[in-house]
Amino acid sequence: MNTPPLYRQLANHYLDAIRSGTLKTGERLPSIRLMMEKHAVSLSTAVQVCRELEDYGVLEARPRSGNYIRQPDTLPRPAPTTSAPALDTRAYVGIHEQVCAVLKASQRATIKVNFASAYCAPQLYPLKTLQDNMIKALRYDACLLGTAGGACGNSALRNILARRALASKTHLASERIVITNGATEAINLALRAVTRPGDTVAVESPTFYGLLQILESLNLRVLEVPASAHTGLNLQALQRLLQGPERVKALIVIPNLQNPLGSIMPDANKARLVKLCAEHDTVLIEDDTYGDLVDTEQPLSTLKHWDSTDNVIYCASLNKTLAPGMRLGWISAGKWHDRVEMLKHTQSRGCEALSQLAASAFMKTPSYERYLRRLRKTLTVQREQMSAAITRYFPIGTSVTHPQGGTLLWVELPSRHSSMTFFHDALKAGIQISPGDIFSNARRFDHFVRIGCGAPYSPRVDEALQTLGRILKNQG
Amino acid sequence: MNTPPLYRQLANHYLDAIRSGTLKTGERLPSIRLMMEKHAVSLSTAVQVCRELEDYGVLEARPRSGNYIRQPDTLPRPAPTTSAPALDTRAYVGIHEQVCAVLKASQRATIKVNFASAYCAPQLYPLKTLQDNMIKALRYDACLLGTAGGACGNSALRNILARRALASKTHLASERIVITNGATEAINLALRAVTRPGDTVAVESPTFYGLLQILESLNLRVLEVPASAHTGLNLQALQRLLQGPERVKALIVIPNLQNPLGSIMPDANKARLVKLCAEHDTVLIEDDTYGDLVDTEQPLSTLKHWDSTDNVIYCASLNKTLAPGMRLGWISAGKWHDRVEMLKHTQSRGCEALSQLAASAFMKTPSYERYLRRLRKTLTVQREQMSAAITRYFPIGTSVTHPQGGTLLWVELPSRHSSMTFFHDALKAGIQISPGDIFSNARRFDHFVRIGCGAPYSPRVDEALQTLGRILKNQG
Repeated sequence: MNTPPLYRQLANHYLDAIRSGTLKTGERLPSIRLMMEKHAVSLSTAVQVCRELEDYGVLEARPRSGNYIRQPDTLPRPAPTTSAPALDTRAYVGIHEQVCAVLKASQRATIKVNFASAYCAPQLYPLKTLQDNMIKALRYDACLLGTAGGACGNSALRNILARRALASKTHLASERIVITNGATEAINLALRAVTRPGDTVAVESPTFYGLLQILESLNLRVLEVPASAHTGLNLQALQRLLQGPERVKALIVIPNLQNPLGSIMPDANKARLVKLCAEHDTVLIEDDTYGDLVDTEQPLSTLKHWDSTDNVIYCASLNKTLAPGMRLGWISAGKWHDRVEMLKHTQSRGCEALSQLAASAFMKTPSYERYLRRLRKTLTVQREQMSAAITRYFPIGTSVTHPQGGTLLWVELPSRHSSMTFFHDALKAGIQISPGDIFSNARRFDHFVRIGCGAPYSPRVDEALQTLGRILKNQG
Repeated sequence: MNTPPLYRQLANHYLDAIRSGTLKTGERLPSIRLMMEKHAVSLSTAVQVCRELEDYGVLEARPRSGNYIRQPDTLPRPAPTTSAPALDTRAYVGIHEQVCAVLKASQRATIKVNFASAYCAPQLYPLKTLQDNMIKALRYDACLLGTAGGACGNSALRNILARRALASKTHLASERIVITNGATEAINLALRAVTRPGDTVAVESPTFYGLLQILESLNLRVLEVPASAHTGLNLQALQRLLQGPERVKALIVIPNLQNPLGSIMPDANKARLVKLCAEHDTVLIEDDTYGDLVDTEQPLSTLKHWDSTDNVIYCASLNKTLAPGMRLGWISAGKWHDRVEMLKHTQSRGCEALSQLAASAFMKTPSYERYLRRLRKTLTVQREQMSAAITRYFPIGTSVTHPQGGTLLWVELPSRHSSMTFFHDALKAGIQISPGDIFSNARRFDHFVRIGCGAPYSPRVDEALQTLGRILKNQG
């Protein structure tokens, strides 16, 4: 084995110090200058050490003050042992608690405009068609509610999903698809199939807080890998991580329209990512929930497309594209299919038939593709209008992503702003936003905010954005 | 601490020998006579030792051959450790595999008459009313499919469930009820809330194989406590177990119409059971799925009713009583409510609204109670007809339970019969039954069979039972 480069040796030195408790949470890391002196290294090495530690999520940068050690969410928790007398109370705290606090504050408030949702406005979904399909299905089969379905779901729907995947050059065998209660259950099953409590799973940073909640609920340790709004996951950072001391059991990636970044991984990156994970025996869990919302005529490739070793578990959902009120997701787990089928059966049995029938009746017609095209165009207009208004109303120094589809904008505020303060002030004005703080266990994104563009632009939306801009300027 | 009685000291001695591998799976336990000689104990002590070991599920009695050690399902598995490189493959084998083999054999066969189902025949359910309610709900709220519901479920339904529980003297606060995908998910959530992989959970023996599959999927160790068709769980055996060396984290009990026994626990036993569990800090998980099918005018008490220390988690389902095609269960987890809500949210999010609306629209009318009364009467007739036919057609020495409600008969065949052989022979004749073998990890019930009485008695049913009788007589 080659000696690791100097910066990694030094980073490991500090990681050990943090793990052993020599450097404690809240303590300041030696400054770059001190590090250079102490270890007789160059500026660039010292900077790389900090970046490495940042990639491990053990540093919290405080503006004008330096880097501080943060521990709980990112360093190995002791593995649960059967002799331990009490429940692991750490499962009760952390990101889930914070997300709940955010959601509960929102529920207590009177919301006039909601920018926190990733869904489209209800009127953009083909609700009438789906309702008609449901009524038809109920009338057609008098026994529909009288019999339980199989654990894997309706075979017509599974066939359609497998056929549609072909368009993005993805081969999913329909008999190895399991219909789930949304992508949430799909990812849950994928993680239960390939990890055990205490294992380490990597995610993009920032990432959808719902994923972080799932990981916390399964007692999995989370490592965050930086991602950019342009090309998504930083492959160099990932490679460093996978070559590091920590065994990473799985990695969850949203390759197309990442939530919240809206990034799309270039094909070359997708290919490299899949290869990298296979090489390190890290299971790659792909969440393709937003793929159908990419504003292109030709569907983008999935990670699964590049997977020649059956190391990618594909998860997706119709929740955002078809109807939030129908809990329809699916998973294609390849060699883990039998285990996923067992877990699905013992976790919640097969999904109800009605939604599956209504969805497949619509999806098998050409209207579905037409509907999707229309939806994508509408969302593009909405995103552009919202983006322009944010640029207009928010303080100078604000920057907004320009995703190629979907409903989400990721807004970086000037660094003096705190998204949690912004969130609470906005709530008081009846406006709900998603504070950046909940998109990372390491709380790296406190001066970011996620803005949903699912609703058509209107004077009310415009006024709400103006109000948000005013709130920020008053804070500044 | 008092010295344990001699039989328990000896039993612990053998348990240690099994745990340490000194006595291996498949090896024969010293005979009663040898044990008496070797340890200089009385006959009754030696017998008690065997009974104790049997209660721990480590003995397999082979007729005319003696007691053999069985290990995998009942003795502590090594706790999962993070350093282990591979998945715990033991999660892939065992009871789930056997249940699957049984179900898959059934799927391959052409089934003419199905006695394996615990459901009623579809025509016994109020399907037309539920369908009409669904259609009304879809027409009433154009946005129903366009918005996602909360994690806890529809509040009208939760109110009705809390109000209905009052009839069985059970106080469930509606705001602390979580609607789940059937009782399967409810029990899954209860177990995830109070145990960790490797923990020990006790169940009744025999018990519904679905519970054993859930426990296996969660990597929980199972101890089986004998139960009788009359009063259910054997409290003395439970007490011995709870006083034993093994920490029992939770106990799952079906107090009213146990599956497969059909037993009903007397109130005094319910009270004692609840007290016993509280004293030993063992969480009591109650599955009340069949409570509404008890053929009495006055609902029976639940375990939750006797619970003064908030140590009982109440789970139930509308799956058997209202509609198998609607996945509606619920859980009232008391002090674990917040954790259960979190787990539900991260496992599958809130359930779809439509079924909840349709069910609550029906359940709030007096028709629901009338429907249940009618259903109970119908099932009583069906059970009696089936029971009479089994007595008529099956070999001498067969005995059948006489449960006070529900759809299930538990049939004990003369001990020379094997339920697995019976199962396969019946399949060849197009008849599906549930072999007793799958109702225990310890495979204690191989000469039992569960017969479902959900379908109205008919010449076809009669003929099928005749065929089953003929098959058994040919085997004998």
